Amino acid sequence: MKIKNKNYSTLWVEDSKIKIIDQTKLPFKLIIKELNTLGDFCRAITQMEVRGAPLIGVTAAFGLALALRKDASSKNIDKSINALLETRPTAVNLRWALSYIFKRIKNKRIQDRAKLSLELAKKIRQEDIINCFKIGLNGYKIIEKIYKKKRKPINILTHCNAGWLATIDWGTALSPIFLANRNGLPVHIWVDETRPRNQGALLTAWELKNEKIPYTIIVDNAGGYLMQKKEVDLCIVGSDRTTSRGDVCNKIGTYLKALSAFDNNIPFYAAVPQSTIDFKIDDSRKIPIEVRSSKELSHLTFLKKKKISTGEIYFRNSNKFNPAFDVTPARYITKLITEKGLIEPKKSEIMKNLQK
Amino acid sequence: MKIKNKNYSTLWVEDSKIKIIDQTKLPFKLIIKELNTLGDFCRAITQMEVRGAPLIGVTAAFGLALALRKDASSKNIDKSINALLETRPTAVNLRWALSYIFKRIKNKRIQDRAKLSLELAKKIRQEDIINCFKIGLNGYKIIEKIYKKKRKPINILTHCNAGWLATIDWGTALSPIFLANRNGLPVHIWVDETRPRNQGALLTAWELKNEKIPYTIIVDNAGGYLMQKKEVDLCIVGSDRTTSRGDVCNKIGTYLKALSAFDNNIPFYAAVPQSTIDFKIDDSRKIPIEVRSSKELSHLTFLKKKKISTGEIYFRNSNKFNPAFDVTPARYITKLITEKGLIEPKKSEIMKNLQK
Repeated sequence: MKIKNKNYSTLWVEDSKIKIIDQTKLPFKLIIKELNTLGDFCRAITQMEVRGAPLIGVTAAFGLALALRKDASSKNIDKSINALLETRPTAVNLRWALSYIFKRIKNKRIQDRAKLSLELAKKIRQEDIINCFKIGLNGYKIIEKIYKKKRKPINILTHCNAGWLATIDWGTALSPIFLANRNGLPVHIWVDETRPRNQGALLTAWELKNEKIPYTIIVDNAGGYLMQKKEVDLCIVGSDRTTSRGDVCNKIGTYLKALSAFDNNIPFYAAVPQSTIDFKIDDSRKIPIEVRSSKELSHLTFLKKKKISTGEIYFRNSNKFNPAFDVTPARYITKLITEKGLIEPKKSEIMKNLQK
Repeated sequence: MKIKNKNYSTLWVEDSKIKIIDQTKLPFKLIIKELNTLGDFCRAITQMEVRGAPLIGVTAAFGLALALRKDASSKNIDKSINALLETRPTAVNLRWALSYIFKRIKNKRIQDRAKLSLELAKKIRQEDIINCFKIGLNGYKIIEKIYKKKRKPINILTHCNAGWLATIDWGTALSPIFLANRNGLPVHIWVDETRPRNQGALLTAWELKNEKIPYTIIVDNAGGYLMQKKEVDLCIVGSDRTTSRGDVCNKIGTYLKALSAFDNNIPFYAAVPQSTIDFKIDDSRKIPIEVRSSKELSHLTFLKKKKISTGEIYFRNSNKFNPAFDVTPARYITKLITEKGLIEPKKSEIMKNLQK
């Protein structure tokens, strides 16, 4: 997708080097980083230089490939996979990507593993782009259908960032929106700020601005009010892990918006690539919910006289707690938008249509 | 209530001067201001140096009394009331306090009006303290009842600041909590940050700290997760205007917490003095919802090297919208905690028990 009219993706290979956009500096600065060691990859994921479930998965795949370039022994494969798995607990794409590669290299000769794992990482990257584009096409039909009835700009609410920055390209929840806009369907996006890290206000709003899509940032508290006032036609969010029953674990606060959409009869979709579905988990209570540093609440990045700095917005030594995800029960989800089509959030449908 | 072990109220008369705590600087600085002209009063309310529905009402009463000290003509009464009514549209206490005084002075001799209106303002102030204390006693019984079953610290979630800073003393939603703590009932408070102005993280958390009550600040997104995890025993919020049917208009985001409490079978109370009930409004859609400057989203006060400053946290010229209140339908409210007891949020009960 575009940044100031130039095409970018979030992670790419250039002269055998793996490069990323450092998302912790966006939208204030566009910084490209090279990841050269397994440690670089782990840090990039932990510190959220790359974030978003699909992108975390692809990044981990390249991290493993790079680690095997130096040492492709089974011992180092285990060690590298464990280091990557420990970076962030909730997004299941991480496990998915690593096990995808592991299964295909474990029985290969040591000298073939590095090359093969890099090829597989590239394949995962390429498929992520294609799947996100397909999610866009499938979601596009939903927006088109509403537009045919309404004949006025469609108001879509989204939470956090499930745009192209959360994937390699196109995004999940925003992919249908990008396609709608490029195809002339008028949309306006309500962008949840998404405390504590404000990925909505910082990343989603900036993506939309770059694509010239009308948007308005609101605080996370405001979505319910807008739904009551009929100012929201539909909601689309992403997912970090979806259970086999269709319960959607996503950025903290998603659940509250789903409740409000349900209360106001507004369709609520989760855009979910197959790699985000955890077929092993039935019971959403078994999903490990990441608790991040409470400093994320009290310390914010701000601009002052064109300089970026960090400031403290609470009083000193206040007590804080920072869980990063919540689970929206399947009963509040209208449908899952997947690369395989729109799927009912029910175990039978998910297993029939999505499980490989 | 206490600030560093010294007793304060939010507005008081000292040597015939009316003094307030400037709440825009809390908790970083304790600044006492004198309000000397009607303009001072209007600015103090508009700029939220004083805020919270009950305190806005009392402040307006003193503002009117002061305006009449200089000119008690009927023309100036009208002018002053209109100026005060225009400061903020949603909290009905403003209208309540002004019409309370107006009814009692309009037929008096001009030379008696100033003195009488000051007496009435002082009476409103004194009754606010008593009513908040009674709300505390009535809410205390709810906490006590849960404690007798649970025998462990009671986790209470609150949104925004409905503590003593929102009133003259004691507060509404926090009054039962202060009383519980002073009477040895163990409580722990989940404090919603309350974007965009962060009155939860700044004012509520600081009030609780000063009263040595355990608390934890969370982002507004996190309450649903905590309720799903059974980490919340009850919710208590305030109100800026409650309809005769018991629909509660309160700080934006309250509705989302009420939905979540309902979904998780957690009692959800609104602490509401009679002065906050709008007996004239049946239909909550008729409540004027204040839309405040969108700069409140993007510009935050922060501490850096012990200095207070303002910084921009979004990218320049992002589009924003900032509605300040939402309405929680009566069906999601367990009961209203009033100075007259616990009242069902139903028109018949409200009219029978509360209307004077």
